[in-house]
Amino acid sequence: MNTINQNDPSVSGNDDDDIVNPWEVKAGSAAGVDYDKIIGKKRIDLEQILTAYEQKTPFYLYTGRGPSSEAMHLGHLVPFIMTKWLQDVFDVPLVIQMTDDEKFLWKDLTVDEANRLAHENAKDIIACGFDKEKTFIFSDFEFMAQCPNFYKNICKIQKCVTYNQVKAIFGFTDSDSIGKIAFPAVQAAPAISTSFPFIFDSEQITQPLPCLIPCAIDQDPYFRMTRDVAPRLNFPKPALIHSTFFPALQGAQCKMSASDINSSIYLTDTPKEIEDKIKKHAYSGGRETLKEHREKGGNCATDVAYQYLKFFLSDDEKLEELKQDYTSGKMLTGELKTILVDVLQKLICEHQERRKQITDDDVKEYMKPRKLKFR
Amino acid sequence: MNTINQNDPSVSGNDDDDIVNPWEVKAGSAAGVDYDKIIGKKRIDLEQILTAYEQKTPFYLYTGRGPSSEAMHLGHLVPFIMTKWLQDVFDVPLVIQMTDDEKFLWKDLTVDEANRLAHENAKDIIACGFDKEKTFIFSDFEFMAQCPNFYKNICKIQKCVTYNQVKAIFGFTDSDSIGKIAFPAVQAAPAISTSFPFIFDSEQITQPLPCLIPCAIDQDPYFRMTRDVAPRLNFPKPALIHSTFFPALQGAQCKMSASDINSSIYLTDTPKEIEDKIKKHAYSGGRETLKEHREKGGNCATDVAYQYLKFFLSDDEKLEELKQDYTSGKMLTGELKTILVDVLQKLICEHQERRKQITDDDVKEYMKPRKLKFR
Repeated sequence: MNTINQNDPSVSGNDDDDIVNPWEVKAGSAAGVDYDKIIGKKRIDLEQILTAYEQKTPFYLYTGRGPSSEAMHLGHLVPFIMTKWLQDVFDVPLVIQMTDDEKFLWKDLTVDEANRLAHENAKDIIACGFDKEKTFIFSDFEFMAQCPNFYKNICKIQKCVTYNQVKAIFGFTDSDSIGKIAFPAVQAAPAISTSFPFIFDSEQITQPLPCLIPCAIDQDPYFRMTRDVAPRLNFPKPALIHSTFFPALQGAQCKMSASDINSSIYLTDTPKEIEDKIKKHAYSGGRETLKEHREKGGNCATDVAYQYLKFFLSDDEKLEELKQDYTSGKMLTGELKTILVDVLQKLICEHQERRKQITDDDVKEYMKPRKLKFR
Repeated sequence: MNTINQNDPSVSGNDDDDIVNPWEVKAGSAAGVDYDKIIGKKRIDLEQILTAYEQKTPFYLYTGRGPSSEAMHLGHLVPFIMTKWLQDVFDVPLVIQMTDDEKFLWKDLTVDEANRLAHENAKDIIACGFDKEKTFIFSDFEFMAQCPNFYKNICKIQKCVTYNQVKAIFGFTDSDSIGKIAFPAVQAAPAISTSFPFIFDSEQITQPLPCLIPCAIDQDPYFRMTRDVAPRLNFPKPALIHSTFFPALQGAQCKMSASDINSSIYLTDTPKEIEDKIKKHAYSGGRETLKEHREKGGNCATDVAYQYLKFFLSDDEKLEELKQDYTSGKMLTGELKTILVDVLQKLICEHQERRKQITDDDVKEYMKPRKLKFR
């Protein structure tokens, strides 16, 4: 079984186990992935980063995207929305890795096609509103030839990690390509600030800076490896903040799949498509009959419309009200879905408007190695 | 047993087997490594390259050096002398890879130290007399950030090679670092001409060029892997020409070791040191007593002085004369050694003179990505 940590009996061990790794996410129950089980007893705390913020010592944010298709969906947006919020709140530089090399190694894509998708996806990421003066987006294929430190840091990390370790962490087998086996170091390297001398090399900064990594839970294996390696190379451990995994329209136990366009809402969907997908395909936590629903109420823990609203309805009081009305049976599935349709039509329409404005030249500017602004 | 090919019973299988891989060379008998056994039934032929030469279609030479120490010895010089001869004869461009990343991954060296040794060793290589207009020397750490195609080709190769394959070819184990496991693709990539667009990208050249790799036999595993991968990526298979392995002063069964300065003659040795090492340490194929030697004659197959002369005495007739005189007992060990001392003192003295002239700026010129001259 290809679990997040094959050696840890608390994580794998029985058939309802969650499978959470960069290539497969499958929840054991309809309530979704058990995060406590994955991150274990050592909940990663943000103390170091918050202390750095209070003491006005610099740190940076690092997140990324594997550009395997043109069609990004709502779930892909979640870590970026969280990252943008963190950038606004902390006022710190952000580096965004586009792992076109990873997608070339894993998927049936050419180098050029993976690289092209990195640029296309960068437009959707820029459309999230990241501050150009504080954000550096890079493609691995390009950055390798832009900055000698990147490959040097990759080699330093690779020297510290054995095949046994990546086998245990990522579930690689002896039939996997040596490209896949070596790749985890490529995703680890941006967590080391010396990979970006043009940003962080200055008279004021004499030590490697700590970084905070907002990411989806499926990327956790990479950064557990990074946290293990960093201190051995005299770099600070990166801090992590996970966004909870975004469920498929069919519910938390199903996988959002590129081959099933009805499993997710794409950033390119029309208002009509959004409405149809939610009304027809969103898994309902409501009851079989109107009578039963009014009596027993709906189940918010499995209702996908409610789950999506938890991500995208910014008004917490309103969300609580909906929860009570739905759970009590006062509100019906159709009514809840209508509210979600309105929220998502607005969100995606605004995203599409912003994305339309972004030119290839804008992408070039974000992807140019350069100084960034920070305290 | 860490042989060149663990799965091939013709290569490993009994205790007098040769061990020949990039990290260990040990001959099973005093006569040295059995080359036919290693290269197998498929003797690599030069037909393709010679046809290209006759038809005046371009090809190139590729060789390299792992810069693990400042002190290069005579054995290191052999493939470069052969390469220089090939460059002069064929009048083709040559690329020389300095695998500073490999040495960082395998040895107790920092990135900076391995990179510094690459530049130091480049001076000894340049002193062999390579034509500046036809020769490009590169360090892996530097070239990765100089040419996007290099990393792209590395990934293409890595995608084609599984851990099972490198385990069989190189004898890697699960405790080896992922850096070591991924490295063979780095040594394979320069055998693909698109790794050097600044040399080979022109209006005249519309297809990838074939290459000829002169190298010591211990590097064969890398290029057997490359020959397997190249056609799958629509590149021509590289052709190989092996220099036979240079024996230690103590004989073909002993290893030249950096920790035993008396096992080899260094390019920095004085005339006195050369004389002392050969007279005191060179394994003799002569007989126990003068009487016995005169009667039975010496054994050229194991005599290190004769073996060395085979490499460095360019006069074939004179060499044949020495062989007959030594084998017949007419010539004594001491006399043969004196001839070798003269040859090596002259060779090394001239090398030292040329090396003294080479500045850091010369090294920079050879290591600058640029157009090269060729037909």
